[in-house]
Amino acid sequence: MHAVTIVDGTLHWKERPDPEPGAGEVLVAVRSAGLNAADLLQLAGFYPAPPGSPPDVPGMEFAGEVVALGPGATRYRVGDRVMAVVGGGAQAELAVVHERCAIRVPDALDPVAAGGFPEAFTTAHDAVFTQAQLGVGESLCVHGAAGGVGVAAVQLGVAAGARVVGTVRNPALRDRVAELGATAVETEGFGQHGPFDVVLELIGGPNLREDISSLAIGGRIAIIGVGGGPKAEISLLDLMAVRGRIHGSTLRARPLEQKAAAAAAVDRHVLPLVDRGLATVPVEATFPMAEAAAAYEHFRAGGKFGKVVLTSEA
Amino acid sequence: MHAVTIVDGTLHWKERPDPEPGAGEVLVAVRSAGLNAADLLQLAGFYPAPPGSPPDVPGMEFAGEVVALGPGATRYRVGDRVMAVVGGGAQAELAVVHERCAIRVPDALDPVAAGGFPEAFTTAHDAVFTQAQLGVGESLCVHGAAGGVGVAAVQLGVAAGARVVGTVRNPALRDRVAELGATAVETEGFGQHGPFDVVLELIGGPNLREDISSLAIGGRIAIIGVGGGPKAEISLLDLMAVRGRIHGSTLRARPLEQKAAAAAAVDRHVLPLVDRGLATVPVEATFPMAEAAAAYEHFRAGGKFGKVVLTSEA
Repeated sequence: MHAVTIVDGTLHWKERPDPEPGAGEVLVAVRSAGLNAADLLQLAGFYPAPPGSPPDVPGMEFAGEVVALGPGATRYRVGDRVMAVVGGGAQAELAVVHERCAIRVPDALDPVAAGGFPEAFTTAHDAVFTQAQLGVGESLCVHGAAGGVGVAAVQLGVAAGARVVGTVRNPALRDRVAELGATAVETEGFGQHGPFDVVLELIGGPNLREDISSLAIGGRIAIIGVGGGPKAEISLLDLMAVRGRIHGSTLRARPLEQKAAAAAAVDRHVLPLVDRGLATVPVEATFPMAEAAAAYEHFRAGGKFGKVVLTSEA
Repeated sequence: MHAVTIVDGTLHWKERPDPEPGAGEVLVAVRSAGLNAADLLQLAGFYPAPPGSPPDVPGMEFAGEVVALGPGATRYRVGDRVMAVVGGGAQAELAVVHERCAIRVPDALDPVAAGGFPEAFTTAHDAVFTQAQLGVGESLCVHGAAGGVGVAAVQLGVAAGARVVGTVRNPALRDRVAELGATAVETEGFGQHGPFDVVLELIGGPNLREDISSLAIGGRIAIIGVGGGPKAEISLLDLMAVRGRIHGSTLRARPLEQKAAAAAAVDRHVLPLVDRGLATVPVEATFPMAEAAAAYEHFRAGGKFGKVVLTSEA
């Protein structure tokens, strides 16, 4: 097969041995694979793939068709359409994933959009619901609401009956976020749109103080990204006064059973929304896998609505 | 009745009208009332009593005997021994509390120690179990382990089957904390005794960075005091790397139903330990209520093991 390959900090489309599905794994012919901020970090050498994932093939999500089953794998059949979050290796013509971490692709999701679905929706659902336990009637603030995870979180929050406020740096994208059902606002002074029961934080340090001061009593902040820097200065009294909670997490480092549980939660809670037209993946641009370097440049420029997806005709 | 009364930042033993039990409340002849750090803050003007509590009579916990029932109060009878956390007004010959927030005093608890029981054990149980969900086999770090809440948390953690590490500034008190079943250590470098599944934080800002870096995967920090200052500088990446959680809370500001729930949790989970001799209140010193000013001075000096309790013969 061919795979996007990191060589000395640059991307190449290289031939390499086909991966082989291990016990309980499926081999997937990748049709599409979404880009994520983590890919840029990995390319820059800051975010190595976890053990078990190829260290030099990036890509944390894909969609495609099952082409072979590893020993003991029984959940899918050859030809089934699946998508998955993986620790790495998604940006290749072939990829392996444990069958418990693979999610069926619903008919309502087109094959290209599906490659940008799993990471965004698994991250958003895990952070906003499994961790921060957003409930109907509550208010949700989504930072970076025009990005991949942000768009997913906005749709999930709206579908779950929350009042959703999304911060969007690029004014040109606010209408798009508003069309999803959120109040789209600038980042500056976002706290005036609170109080918030849940805040989904992808920017990190610079926002945290205002995140806390805009919390409702019993509010929760889920930190899943630090695009604006990791350092935060906070007053613990402010957090105590609202009896608030701060969660920090990443998906990538979790053990298999937790990743499988997160995938099962998406299967149960998110796919029904896709079927009902309440959750989708806006694809901002597609690039052939062989042109990954151009795709990364496009992604790095920012100011996009939704996902950048690599495609393969393999 | 007489009550400890704050006049222009100093304490006086003054005559004032007897409080009257409102709907669902009981009137209690106070036998003993523990001191807490919050009393010093209130005396200094930094921590006003919540609405519904007398603004100038301090005291957040008491034990005594029910002497009258308000309209609709049915849970206790005149003569019953009860103890309770209240928003204020405990350091007086008579105090009122809603019957759902009153806890029966177990026979194993002596009448003086009982006055120092409810705030410490309710705070510790709520933070360590209800919020941070300490489980058997986990590890717990208790900061300020020789203080009132610390001693309670150490005993609860040991009884619950956790490995407990307690930080104690005063070397002379470490043996006492060790006798409760904890490993007693100095605050400096406490993180080397981790990783911790749960950290109970009463010191606040200065500890938070090391609290986070000493967390186990999935660890929880419960912040219930900021004796060392409220400002904290943290790295959100550190919190994300361990998929950790930070809770901030106070008991005092909560609505009635939450206080009643916390009292019910103590009744169910802590009183059985008292009956079995696994949880008790070490009383470091007692003072007659009329000498509250001297008691506050003694409390302020620090370096104590357990509680300072005011007593009344009323």
